[in-house]
Amino acid sequence: MKEEKKNNAQESEQARLEAEEREVAREAERVAAELERAESELEQARKEIETLKDKYVRLLADFDNYRKRMQAEVEAARREGEIKAIRAILPVLDDLERALEHAGANPEAIAEGVKAVHQGFQRILGGLGVEAVPGEGEPFDPNVHEAIGVVEGEEDEKVAAVYQKGYRYGEQLIRPARVAVTKKKEVGGGK
Amino acid sequence: MKEEKKNNAQESEQARLEAEEREVAREAERVAAELERAESELEQARKEIETLKDKYVRLLADFDNYRKRMQAEVEAARREGEIKAIRAILPVLDDLERALEHAGANPEAIAEGVKAVHQGFQRILGGLGVEAVPGEGEPFDPNVHEAIGVVEGEEDEKVAAVYQKGYRYGEQLIRPARVAVTKKKEVGGGK
Repeated sequence: MKEEKKNNAQESEQARLEAEEREVAREAERVAAELERAESELEQARKEIETLKDKYVRLLADFDNYRKRMQAEVEAARREGEIKAIRAILPVLDDLERALEHAGANPEAIAEGVKAVHQGFQRILGGLGVEAVPGEGEPFDPNVHEAIGVVEGEEDEKVAAVYQKGYRYGEQLIRPARVAVTKKKEVGGGK
Repeated sequence: MKEEKKNNAQESEQARLEAEEREVAREAERVAAELERAESELEQARKEIETLKDKYVRLLADFDNYRKRMQAEVEAARREGEIKAIRAILPVLDDLERALEHAGANPEAIAEGVKAVHQGFQRILGGLGVEAVPGEGEPFDPNVHEAIGVVEGEEDEKVAAVYQKGYRYGEQLIRPARVAVTKKKEVGGGK
Protein backbone atom coordinates (compact mmCIF):
# COMPACT_ATOMS: atom_id res chain seq x y z
CA MET A 1 0.00 0.00 0.00
CA LYS A 2 2.76 2.35 0.92
CA GLU A 3 4.66 1.38 -2.23
CA GLU A 4 1.53 1.90 -4.29
CA LYS A 5 0.99 5.35 -2.85
CA LYS A 6 4.58 6.21 -3.63
CA ASN A 7 4.10 4.97 -7.17
CA ASN A 8 1.02 7.12 -7.64
CA ALA A 9 2.82 10.17 -6.34
CA GLN A 10 5.71 9.54 -8.67
CA GLU A 11 3.38 9.12 -11.63
CA SER A 12 1.53 12.36 -10.94
CA GLU A 13 4.84 14.20 -10.50
CA GLN A 14 5.92 12.83 -13.87
CA ALA A 15 2.69 14.02 -15.52
CA ARG A 16 3.17 17.45 -13.98
CA LEU A 17 6.74 17.59 -15.30
CA GLU A 18 5.61 16.54 -18.75
CA ALA A 19 2.87 19.20 -18.80
CA GLU A 20 5.34 21.79 -17.58
CA GLU A 21 7.80 20.82 -20.28
CA ARG A 22 5.10 21.10 -22.94
CA GLU A 23 4.21 24.53 -21.57
CA VAL A 24 7.85 25.69 -21.70
CA ALA A 25 8.23 24.25 -25.21
CA ARG A 26 5.13 26.10 -26.41
CA GLU A 27 6.44 29.33 -24.91
CA ALA A 28 9.82 28.76 -26.59
CA GLU A 29 8.07 28.21 -29.88
CA ARG A 30 6.07 31.42 -29.50
CA VAL A 31 9.20 33.41 -28.67
CA ALA A 32 11.05 31.84 -31.60
CA ALA A 33 8.23 32.86 -33.96
CA GLU A 34 8.35 36.38 -32.60
CA LEU A 35 12.12 36.44 -33.07
CA GLU A 36 11.68 35.36 -36.66
CA ARG A 37 9.17 38.18 -37.24
CA ALA A 38 11.49 40.69 -35.55
CA GLU A 39 14.49 39.54 -37.62
CA SER A 40 12.48 39.87 -40.80
CA GLU A 41 11.26 43.36 -39.85
CA LEU A 42 14.84 44.26 -38.97
CA GLU A 43 16.00 43.16 -42.39
CA GLN A 44 13.27 45.26 -44.01
CA ALA A 45 14.26 48.23 -41.90
CA ARG A 46 17.92 47.85 -42.87
CA LYS A 47 16.98 47.76 -46.53
CA GLU A 48 14.91 50.90 -46.06
CA ILE A 49 17.86 52.58 -44.34
CA GLU A 50 20.07 51.74 -47.31
CA THR A 51 17.46 53.06 -49.74
CA LEU A 52 17.03 56.28 -47.78
CA LYS A 53 20.79 56.83 -47.55
CA ASP A 54 21.08 56.29 -51.29
CA LYS A 55 18.25 58.73 -51.98
CA TYR A 56 19.85 61.31 -49.70
CA VAL A 57 23.27 60.99 -51.30
CA ARG A 58 21.76 61.28 -54.78
CA LEU A 59 19.76 64.37 -53.82
CA LEU A 60 22.88 65.92 -52.29
CA ALA A 61 24.82 65.31 -55.52
CA ASP A 62 21.96 66.81 -57.58
CA PHE A 63 21.92 69.84 -55.30
CA ASP A 64 25.67 70.24 -55.66
CA ASN A 65 25.57 70.03 -59.44
CA TYR A 66 22.71 72.49 -59.55
CA ARG A 67 24.65 74.89 -57.33
CA LYS A 68 27.67 74.77 -59.62
CA ARG A 69 25.54 75.17 -62.71
CA MET A 70 23.70 78.13 -61.24
CA GLN A 71 26.90 79.93 -60.32
CA ALA A 72 27.92 79.73 -63.96
CA GLU A 73 24.41 80.75 -65.00
CA VAL A 74 24.41 83.86 -62.83
CA GLU A 75 27.72 84.89 -64.41
CA ALA A 76 26.33 84.20 -67.88
CA ALA A 77 23.17 86.20 -67.14
CA ARG A 78 25.22 89.20 -66.01
CA ARG A 79 27.17 89.01 -69.26
CA GLU A 80 24.00 88.61 -71.30
CA GLY A 81 22.57 91.71 -69.64
CA GLU A 82 25.66 93.71 -70.53
CA ILE A 83 25.65 92.45 -74.08
CA LYS A 84 21.96 93.21 -74.48
CA ALA A 85 22.49 96.82 -73.41
CA ILE A 86 25.63 97.26 -75.52
CA ARG A 87 24.02 95.72 -78.59
CA ALA A 88 21.07 98.07 -78.19
CA ILE A 89 23.29 101.13 -77.90
CA LEU A 90 25.70 100.34 -80.76
CA PRO A 91 23.50 102.01 -83.43
CA VAL A 92 24.18 105.29 -81.62
CA LEU A 93 27.86 104.75 -82.35
CA ASP A 94 27.04 103.97 -85.99
CA ASP A 95 24.99 107.14 -86.32
CA LEU A 96 27.64 109.22 -84.63
CA GLU A 97 30.24 107.89 -87.06
CA ARG A 98 27.97 108.61 -90.01
CA ALA A 99 27.42 112.16 -88.77
CA LEU A 100 31.17 112.65 -88.45
CA GLU A 101 31.79 111.32 -91.95
CA HIS A 102 29.57 114.06 -93.36
CA ALA A 103 31.03 116.73 -91.09
CA GLY A 104 33.92 117.45 -93.46
CA ALA A 105 31.64 118.00 -96.44
CA ASN A 106 29.14 120.21 -94.67
CA PRO A 107 30.10 121.36 -91.16
CA GLU A 108 26.73 123.07 -90.63
CA ALA A 109 24.77 119.90 -91.31
CA ILE A 110 26.48 118.05 -88.47
CA ALA A 111 24.35 119.79 -85.85
CA GLU A 112 21.24 118.30 -87.44
CA GLY A 113 22.88 114.86 -87.60
CA VAL A 114 23.96 115.00 -83.99
CA LYS A 115 20.48 116.06 -82.89
CA ALA A 116 19.15 112.95 -84.62
CA VAL A 117 21.82 110.82 -82.90
CA HIS A 118 20.81 112.29 -79.58
CA GLN A 119 17.14 111.53 -80.17
CA GLY A 120 18.03 108.01 -81.24
CA PHE A 121 20.08 107.54 -78.09
CA GLN A 122 17.18 108.65 -75.91
CA ARG A 123 14.80 106.38 -77.79
CA ILE A 124 17.09 103.40 -77.29
CA LEU A 125 17.47 104.08 -73.57
CA GLY A 126 13.70 104.34 -73.33
CA GLY A 127 13.41 101.00 -75.13
CA LEU A 128 15.77 99.46 -72.55
CA GLY A 129 13.47 100.76 -69.80
CA VAL A 130 15.75 103.64 -68.78
CA GLU A 131 14.05 106.88 -67.71
CA ALA A 132 15.43 110.25 -66.66
CA VAL A 133 14.64 111.15 -63.04
CA PRO A 134 12.59 114.34 -62.44
CA GLY A 135 14.54 117.54 -63.16
CA GLU A 136 14.29 121.33 -62.84
CA GLY A 137 11.31 122.66 -60.91
CA GLU A 138 10.43 119.28 -59.40
CA PRO A 139 10.58 118.60 -55.66
CA PHE A 140 14.01 117.56 -54.41
CA ASP A 141 14.06 113.82 -53.70
CA PRO A 142 17.19 112.47 -52.00
CA ASN A 143 16.43 109.03 -53.49
CA VAL A 144 17.14 110.29 -57.01
CA HIS A 145 18.84 113.67 -56.54
CA GLU A 146 22.28 114.46 -55.22
CA ALA A 147 22.42 118.07 -53.97
CA ILE A 148 25.69 119.71 -54.92
CA GLY A 149 24.62 123.30 -54.37
CA VAL A 150 21.95 125.55 -52.83
CA VAL A 151 20.34 128.57 -54.43
CA GLU A 152 17.73 131.02 -53.14
CA GLY A 153 14.25 130.45 -54.50
CA GLU A 154 10.55 131.12 -53.93
CA GLU A 155 10.13 127.80 -52.15
CA ASP A 156 12.27 125.35 -50.20
CA GLU A 157 13.53 122.04 -51.56
CA LYS A 158 12.94 122.33 -55.28
CA VAL A 159 15.42 121.32 -57.97
CA ALA A 160 16.78 124.68 -59.16
CA ALA A 161 19.22 123.36 -61.80
CA VAL A 162 20.47 120.00 -63.05
CA TYR A 163 24.24 119.71 -63.55
CA GLN A 164 24.13 116.08 -64.60
CA LYS A 165 20.96 114.23 -65.46
CA GLY A 166 19.97 111.21 -63.39
CA TYR A 167 18.55 108.00 -64.77
CA ARG A 168 16.68 105.04 -63.37
CA TYR A 169 15.84 101.57 -64.56
CA GLY A 170 12.40 100.74 -63.20
CA GLU A 171 12.70 101.17 -59.46
CA GLN A 172 16.47 100.95 -59.57
CA LEU A 173 18.55 104.12 -59.73
CA ILE A 174 21.33 103.96 -62.33
CA ARG A 175 22.80 107.25 -61.20
CA PRO A 176 21.34 110.19 -59.28
CA ALA A 177 20.88 113.60 -60.87
CA ARG A 178 23.41 116.13 -59.56
CA VAL A 179 21.39 119.23 -58.77
CA ALA A 180 21.23 122.59 -57.05
CA VAL A 181 18.40 122.84 -54.51
CA THR A 182 16.36 125.92 -53.64
CA LYS A 183 16.28 127.49 -50.22
CA LYS A 184 13.43 129.93 -49.55
CA LYS A 185 14.47 133.59 -49.49
CA GLU A 186 14.52 135.01 -45.93
CA VAL A 187 11.96 137.84 -45.70
CA GLY A 188 13.06 140.92 -43.70
CA GLY A 189 16.76 139.95 -43.57
CA GLY A 190 18.16 137.91 -40.66
CA LYS A 191 16.63 134.94 -38.88
CA MET B 1 12.10 -6.29 -5.82
CA LYS B 2 9.89 -5.75 -8.82
CA GLU B 3 8.37 -2.68 -7.17
CA GLU B 4 11.83 -1.36 -6.39
CA LYS B 5 12.90 -1.77 -10.00
CA LYS B 6 9.81 0.03 -11.14
CA ASN B 7 10.53 2.81 -8.65
CA ASN B 8 14.08 3.16 -9.94
CA ALA B 9 12.85 3.32 -13.53
CA GLN B 10 10.32 5.97 -12.59
CA GLU B 11 12.94 8.02 -10.80
CA SER B 12 15.36 7.95 -13.71
CA GLU B 13 12.54 8.91 -16.11
CA GLN B 14 11.74 11.80 -13.85
CA ALA B 15 15.36 12.94 -13.80
CA ARG B 16 15.47 12.75 -17.60
CA LEU B 17 12.29 14.79 -17.82
CA GLU B 18 13.68 17.39 -15.44
CA ALA B 19 16.92 17.64 -17.42
CA GLU B 20 14.96 17.95 -20.65
CA GLU B 21 12.81 20.66 -19.16
CA ARG B 22 15.90 22.58 -18.01
CA GLU B 23 17.33 22.24 -21.50
CA VAL B 24 14.11 23.56 -23.09
CA ALA B 25 13.97 26.40 -20.57
CA ARG B 26 17.58 27.39 -21.29
CA GLU B 27 16.82 27.41 -25.00
CA ALA B 28 13.70 29.51 -24.42
CA GLU B 29 15.77 31.94 -22.39
CA ARG B 30 18.38 32.22 -25.14
CA VAL B 31 15.71 32.86 -27.78
CA ALA B 32 14.02 35.42 -25.52
CA ALA B 33 17.34 37.26 -25.12
CA GLU B 34 17.83 37.24 -28.86
CA LEU B 35 14.31 38.56 -29.34
CA GLU B 36 15.05 41.34 -26.92
CA ARG B 37 18.23 42.25 -28.86
CA ALA B 38 16.34 42.11 -32.17
CA GLU B 39 13.53 44.31 -30.82
CA SER B 40 16.05 46.83 -29.58
CA GLU B 41 17.89 46.85 -32.90
CA LEU B 42 14.56 47.24 -34.66
CA GLU B 43 13.74 50.23 -32.52
CA GLN B 44 17.13 51.76 -33.34
CA ALA B 45 16.57 51.10 -37.03
CA ARG B 46 13.15 52.74 -36.91
CA LYS B 47 14.64 55.79 -35.25
CA GLU B 48 17.31 55.93 -37.93
CA ILE B 49 14.64 55.70 -40.63
CA GLU B 50 12.82 58.64 -39.06
CA THR B 51 16.05 60.63 -38.86
CA LEU B 52 16.94 59.86 -42.47
CA LYS B 53 13.47 60.78 -43.69
CA ASP B 54 13.70 64.06 -41.78
CA LYS B 55 17.12 64.82 -43.23
CA TYR B 56 15.88 64.06 -46.72
CA VAL B 57 12.82 66.27 -46.38
CA ARG B 58 14.93 69.11 -44.99
CA LEU B 59 17.45 68.81 -47.82
CA LEU B 60 14.63 68.79 -50.36
CA ALA B 61 13.20 71.97 -48.84
CA ASP B 62 16.66 73.61 -48.87
CA PHE B 63 17.09 72.63 -52.51
CA ASP B 64 13.69 74.06 -53.35
CA ASN B 65 14.38 77.35 -51.62
CA TYR B 66 17.77 77.59 -53.29
CA ARG B 67 16.16 76.95 -56.67
CA LYS B 68 13.65 79.75 -56.14
CA ARG B 69 16.32 82.12 -54.86
CA MET B 70 18.59 81.37 -57.81
CA GLN B 71 15.86 82.04 -60.35
CA ALA B 72 15.49 85.49 -58.83
CA GLU B 73 19.26 85.88 -58.68
CA VAL B 74 19.72 85.05 -62.38
CA GLU B 75 17.14 87.70 -63.21
CA ALA B 76 18.86 90.19 -60.92
CA ALA B 77 22.26 89.43 -62.48
CA ARG B 78 20.91 90.05 -65.97
CA ARG B 79 19.54 93.37 -64.79
CA GLU B 80 22.81 94.25 -63.07
CA GLY B 81 24.69 93.53 -66.27
CA GLU B 82 22.38 95.82 -68.21
CA ILE B 83 22.66 98.56 -65.63
CA LYS B 84 26.44 98.28 -65.54
CA ALA B 85 26.67 98.77 -69.31
CA ILE B 86 24.10 101.59 -69.36
CA ARG B 87 25.77 103.41 -66.46
CA ALA B 88 29.09 103.18 -68.26
CA ILE B 89 27.66 104.59 -71.49
CA LEU B 90 25.62 107.46 -69.98
CA PRO B 91 28.56 109.92 -70.05
CA VAL B 92 28.42 109.66 -73.85
CA LEU B 93 24.89 111.01 -73.65
CA ASP B 94 26.06 113.80 -71.33
CA ASP B 95 28.85 114.76 -73.72
CA LEU B 96 26.53 114.64 -76.70
CA GLU B 97 24.11 116.96 -74.93
CA ARG B 98 26.93 119.32 -74.01
CA ALA B 99 28.12 119.38 -77.63
CA LEU B 100 24.59 120.18 -78.79
CA GLU B 101 24.22 123.00 -76.23
CA HIS B 102 27.22 124.73 -77.77
CA ALA B 103 26.09 124.03 -81.34
CA GLY B 104 23.90 127.14 -81.46
CA ALA B 105 26.69 129.45 -80.38
CA ASN B 106 29.35 128.06 -82.68
CA PRO B 107 28.14 125.57 -85.29
CA GLU B 108 31.66 124.89 -86.52
CA ALA B 109 32.91 123.86 -83.11
CA ILE B 110 30.36 121.06 -82.86
CA ALA B 111 32.41 118.82 -85.17
CA GLU B 112 35.28 118.94 -82.67
CA GLY B 113 32.92 118.24 -79.80
CA VAL B 114 31.33 115.29 -81.55
CA LYS B 115 34.75 113.85 -82.41
CA ALA B 116 35.54 113.94 -78.71
CA VAL B 117 32.21 112.27 -77.92
CA HIS B 118 33.00 109.57 -80.44
CA GLN B 119 36.43 108.93 -78.93
CA GLY B 120 34.91 108.84 -75.47
CA PHE B 121 32.32 106.33 -76.65
CA GLN B 122 35.02 104.07 -78.07
CA ARG B 123 37.06 104.35 -74.89
CA ILE B 124 34.04 103.36 -72.79
CA LEU B 125 33.25 100.36 -74.96
CA GLY B 126 36.91 99.32 -74.70
CA GLY B 127 36.66 99.64 -70.92
CA LEU B 128 33.61 97.34 -70.95
CA GLY B 129 35.67 94.77 -72.88
CA VAL B 130 34.03 95.45 -76.25
CA GLU B 131 36.27 95.27 -79.33
CA ALA B 132 35.60 95.89 -83.01
CA VAL B 133 35.99 92.77 -85.18
CA PRO B 134 38.63 92.89 -87.97
CA GLY B 135 37.66 95.19 -90.86
CA GLU B 136 38.76 96.20 -94.35
CA GLY B 137 41.63 94.22 -95.85
CA GLU B 138 41.38 91.42 -93.29
CA PRO B 139 40.48 87.83 -94.23
CA PHE B 140 36.75 87.17 -94.35
CA ASP B 141 35.68 85.19 -91.26
CA PRO B 142 32.08 83.93 -91.24
CA ASN B 143 32.23 83.85 -87.44
CA VAL B 144 32.41 87.63 -87.24
CA HIS B 145 31.53 88.86 -90.74
CA GLU B 146 28.22 88.79 -92.55
CA ALA B 147 28.78 89.01 -96.31
CA ILE B 148 26.18 91.27 -97.93
CA GLY B 149 27.99 91.78 -101.23
CA VAL B 150 30.83 90.55 -103.43
CA VAL B 151 33.39 92.71 -105.28
CA GLU B 152 36.27 91.78 -107.56
CA GLY B 153 39.69 91.96 -105.97
CA GLU B 154 43.28 90.79 -106.17
CA GLU B 155 42.59 87.89 -103.83
CA ASP B 156 39.64 85.78 -102.77
CA GLU B 157 37.82 86.11 -99.45
CA LYS B 158 39.06 89.42 -98.10
CA VAL B 159 36.90 92.09 -96.51
CA ALA B 160 36.60 94.71 -99.27
CA ALA B 161 34.39 97.19 -97.39
CA VAL B 162 32.57 97.42 -94.06
CA TYR B 163 28.98 98.68 -94.20
CA GLN B 164 28.36 98.27 -90.49
CA LYS B 165 31.10 97.61 -87.97
CA GLY B 166 30.96 94.41 -85.95
CA TYR B 167 31.76 94.13 -82.24
CA ARG B 168 32.59 91.34 -79.87
CA TYR B 169 32.75 90.93 -76.15
CA GLY B 170 35.61 88.57 -75.38
CA GLU B 171 34.85 85.43 -77.35
CA GLN B 172 31.21 86.38 -77.70
CA LEU B 173 30.00 88.18 -80.82
CA ILE B 174 27.73 91.14 -80.06
CA ARG B 175 26.93 91.67 -83.72
CA PRO B 176 28.75 90.66 -86.91
CA ALA B 177 30.27 93.22 -89.27
CA ARG B 178 28.25 93.59 -92.48
CA VAL B 179 30.81 93.50 -95.24
CA ALA B 180 31.50 93.13 -98.95
CA VAL B 181 33.85 90.24 -99.73
CA THR B 182 36.40 90.07 -102.55
CA LYS B 183 36.32 87.51 -105.32
CA LYS B 184 39.54 87.10 -107.30
CA LYS B 185 39.42 88.59 -110.80
CA GLU B 186 39.19 85.86 -113.44
CA VAL B 187 42.29 86.00 -115.68
CA GLY B 188 41.62 85.44 -119.40
CA GLY B 189 37.88 86.06 -119.19
CA GLY B 190 36.62 82.94 -117.37
CA LYS B 191 36.16 79.44 -118.69
